[in-house]
Amino acid sequence: MAKTHSDIGLIGLAVMGQNLALNIADHGFQISVYNRTVEKTEKFVAENPSTPGGVVGTKTLEEFVQSLAKPRKAVILVQAGKATDAVIDGLAALFEPGDIIIDGGNALWTDTIRREKALKEKGLRFIGSGVSGGEEGARFGPALMPGGDREAYKELAPVWNAIAAKVDAKTGKPLTGAAPGKPIKGGVPCATYIGENGAGHYVKMVHNGIEYGDMQMICEAYALMQGLLGLKPAEMGAIFSEWNQGMLGSFLIEITADILKQKDPVTKKPFVDIVLDTAGQKGTGKWTSVNALDMGVPAPTIAESVFARCISAVKEERVAASKILKGPKKKYRGSKKALVQAIHDALYCSKICSYAQGFQLMRTAQQEYNWKLNFGEIAQIWRGGCIIRATFLQKITEAYARNPKLANLLLDAYFNKTVKKAQENWRKVVALAAECGVPAPTFSSALAYYDSYRSARLPANLLQGQRDYFGAHTYERTDKPRGKFFHIDWPEPTRPQLEA
Amino acid sequence: MAKTHSDIGLIGLAVMGQNLALNIADHGFQISVYNRTVEKTEKFVAENPSTPGGVVGTKTLEEFVQSLAKPRKAVILVQAGKATDAVIDGLAALFEPGDIIIDGGNALWTDTIRREKALKEKGLRFIGSGVSGGEEGARFGPALMPGGDREAYKELAPVWNAIAAKVDAKTGKPLTGAAPGKPIKGGVPCATYIGENGAGHYVKMVHNGIEYGDMQMICEAYALMQGLLGLKPAEMGAIFSEWNQGMLGSFLIEITADILKQKDPVTKKPFVDIVLDTAGQKGTGKWTSVNALDMGVPAPTIAESVFARCISAVKEERVAASKILKGPKKKYRGSKKALVQAIHDALYCSKICSYAQGFQLMRTAQQEYNWKLNFGEIAQIWRGGCIIRATFLQKITEAYARNPKLANLLLDAYFNKTVKKAQENWRKVVALAAECGVPAPTFSSALAYYDSYRSARLPANLLQGQRDYFGAHTYERTDKPRGKFFHIDWPEPTRPQLEA
Repeated sequence: MAKTHSDIGLIGLAVMGQNLALNIADHGFQISVYNRTVEKTEKFVAENPSTPGGVVGTKTLEEFVQSLAKPRKAVILVQAGKATDAVIDGLAALFEPGDIIIDGGNALWTDTIRREKALKEKGLRFIGSGVSGGEEGARFGPALMPGGDREAYKELAPVWNAIAAKVDAKTGKPLTGAAPGKPIKGGVPCATYIGENGAGHYVKMVHNGIEYGDMQMICEAYALMQGLLGLKPAEMGAIFSEWNQGMLGSFLIEITADILKQKDPVTKKPFVDIVLDTAGQKGTGKWTSVNALDMGVPAPTIAESVFARCISAVKEERVAASKILKGPKKKYRGSKKALVQAIHDALYCSKICSYAQGFQLMRTAQQEYNWKLNFGEIAQIWRGGCIIRATFLQKITEAYARNPKLANLLLDAYFNKTVKKAQENWRKVVALAAECGVPAPTFSSALAYYDSYRSARLPANLLQGQRDYFGAHTYERTDKPRGKFFHIDWPEPTRPQLEA
Repeated sequence: MAKTHSDIGLIGLAVMGQNLALNIADHGFQISVYNRTVEKTEKFVAENPSTPGGVVGTKTLEEFVQSLAKPRKAVILVQAGKATDAVIDGLAALFEPGDIIIDGGNALWTDTIRREKALKEKGLRFIGSGVSGGEEGARFGPALMPGGDREAYKELAPVWNAIAAKVDAKTGKPLTGAAPGKPIKGGVPCATYIGENGAGHYVKMVHNGIEYGDMQMICEAYALMQGLLGLKPAEMGAIFSEWNQGMLGSFLIEITADILKQKDPVTKKPFVDIVLDTAGQKGTGKWTSVNALDMGVPAPTIAESVFARCISAVKEERVAASKILKGPKKKYRGSKKALVQAIHDALYCSKICSYAQGFQLMRTAQQEYNWKLNFGEIAQIWRGGCIIRATFLQKITEAYARNPKLANLLLDAYFNKTVKKAQENWRKVVALAAECGVPAPTFSSALAYYDSYRSARLPANLLQGQRDYFGAHTYERTDKPRGKFFHIDWPEPTRPQLEA
């Protein structure tokens, strides 16, 4: 028996929107849906006649708004950017003070900040929520990163907690329902209030940057096993399956094993061997890297993973270059087992550094935007539902539980110990990659990050000397307090036309 | 005897502006100057009573404008951003159609595009000119990168050609005047029309990005000699002096030698040993990296150099981390001479890759903005005056003379041969850095770039498999034409909460 008013509404019935709507209805909430093209709405409602909560199709935005219980809650899942602004404007014209708009799209966090401010002036409440886990996540349990009006989130929380993925409170392991679409009993939902205005979308962006890093690092492990050991896809699939049982255990390692074992349906060859090696991207890894540059926070490994996609894209140029540019002759002649283990360790250490960079970004953004982020909770909600869900995120939660003010993940006892133990292998792999000509941009960038971060003294003193020499930019001294600036009158030969 | 109207005017009498004004006057042009604070103008004119051209102080913007011969030409050298906009607005209100405004500041090229368009609508002509070489360059011969209205540049060219640094037409070597401030006879001026609207400022930005790379690479060479061989600053100074005689010969190598030989005036210790190792930055390296990310052009080495400055900035964090995070035990025990040569080769190869990235950026921007850039000429005007002036730029000019459509610098016969010969040493240095724990982010990033670029096949096939698996992003096939997209229905375990 349908309620007179729906518990919540959703606008935008592309796959993500449909799946999120069904997920919400599965959990007993009545949901109104609206889409620009009415046919899509009608088809969706017709195809889903009986859900525990019920799906109510609406033909106009007015009808949609009138169908919602007050305070109204409407989730938007349309394209980020202008389309989102248009839907928000439409809703804002019809909503009443106190009503709540939730943007579940992949918005740039600065847009979310702007929108929250503009809507607040109209008395409307706005939540920008990261939704991670792709289409499957949206359908059966995503990780949810809501930011914005804290009081408004209290109204949304019952829905968000219900539909989110769940992890075991103690172990952090993702929990499983009796069957797809059947509610999971107990567990901690992978949804938590992140912070004011754009905090949720910001954290989602960093998640995606980390995801870019994870994916590229797995590709480098694969390239090294193939390039240095000549392993076949199925062999590597078996290795990734084995790795999935240990500290690297994660969704991405699991699907990598599947992909490497997969046969091409057409040729029956190994699937990966027929896939073209040009990676696409949708921009969130780029946003993360640009933000790192803007804030002056080192996130070189994430940036290298974005650039690796860019260089993969110039396939024709690379093919032409491969006929001209020669590599080294050196081949690896050591033990296969030892090298596979070393690659495992290099992957794990590089991953730790990449996550350390992501958490440094959030730490700096928190200061910049005056958010109060709970890093342990963020790691925990990433344990389930999202693309980067992984066993080791529990270690991050534990690290921040030990020390909520941890300056860098690498400094936590667990991660420090892990890297200490594995670094010889990591260094060996980076060295071999360089000597044998297998590109490993994120492995080597992560190692340079680690070695830079643990350097009490970097060669930037020489760089400051250069800047003082040609630009009179001054320098600070090791034997004087910070903030005192000095300059040397450098000799004449600085004069450009006097150099011979 | 003063002319009734000045040949040109200049607004903004900070050091750069003063020096550029004196350089212009030295070459026989009468120049009117204006500064917001009249005292500064009066002091400047009083201090420079007799220049070949003559300096005319003006107290108001109206007086400044009236003092100029038509079509009026006014060079602006104030802070980039709002200050520049304010001065342009002031001039635009007083200038007549056909008059020319030249922005010699460090403007973002997109601002230059916007300003050129707005002024054109008012009938005014605008030139955005990169000015490189710091204070000394401005005074005695900068490299000048003017972009904007081509006809207007014909009016400015006599001044710009006169004041620019000069190089020998055949060898590309910088030429020297009889004495500072004395005009140089003959030679090719380091000034050339770059292209429409923002092209000049864009090329200047890439110059600065390359400069960031050069500086960081030199720092890594220094850090490796210190870290692996324990060399003292004076020894390293001698090595850099020697390198300056060869293919690495450049302004930055020359001043590095000076800096390493320099004694601290206070303690009499080696100067570099008392300089604090925290690098500042003014943003142009960041702009270059952000633009690379925005355009999807791989410039990882330049980005690593920016991030290296960022990580140098967190000095206190690093000092704390150095007490906790351990490095490797391995030490270098081989020949000193061989390693110094290997570091030299690593520096040269990395530098080639960094420049290749910079030129790739310009190639892509040219398509994006419909410019017609002459890469050989750009390399040539960088031969003199600017911070990155270097012997090897002549090789770039020659490469583009051989093939103006060169897809990547690395593919040119000279650079290909050079890298081929030197790569074993380069790989050795990157491997040693990794094994011995000396951070070499740009050396290793450049090597990964080289190895990626020469790879007909990169592991991005696996990455596309991952994207198809979790996001149904589809993939292309090696056995089908580009632009045909395929998808596999991946197995159930993708469902987040079903993973164990």
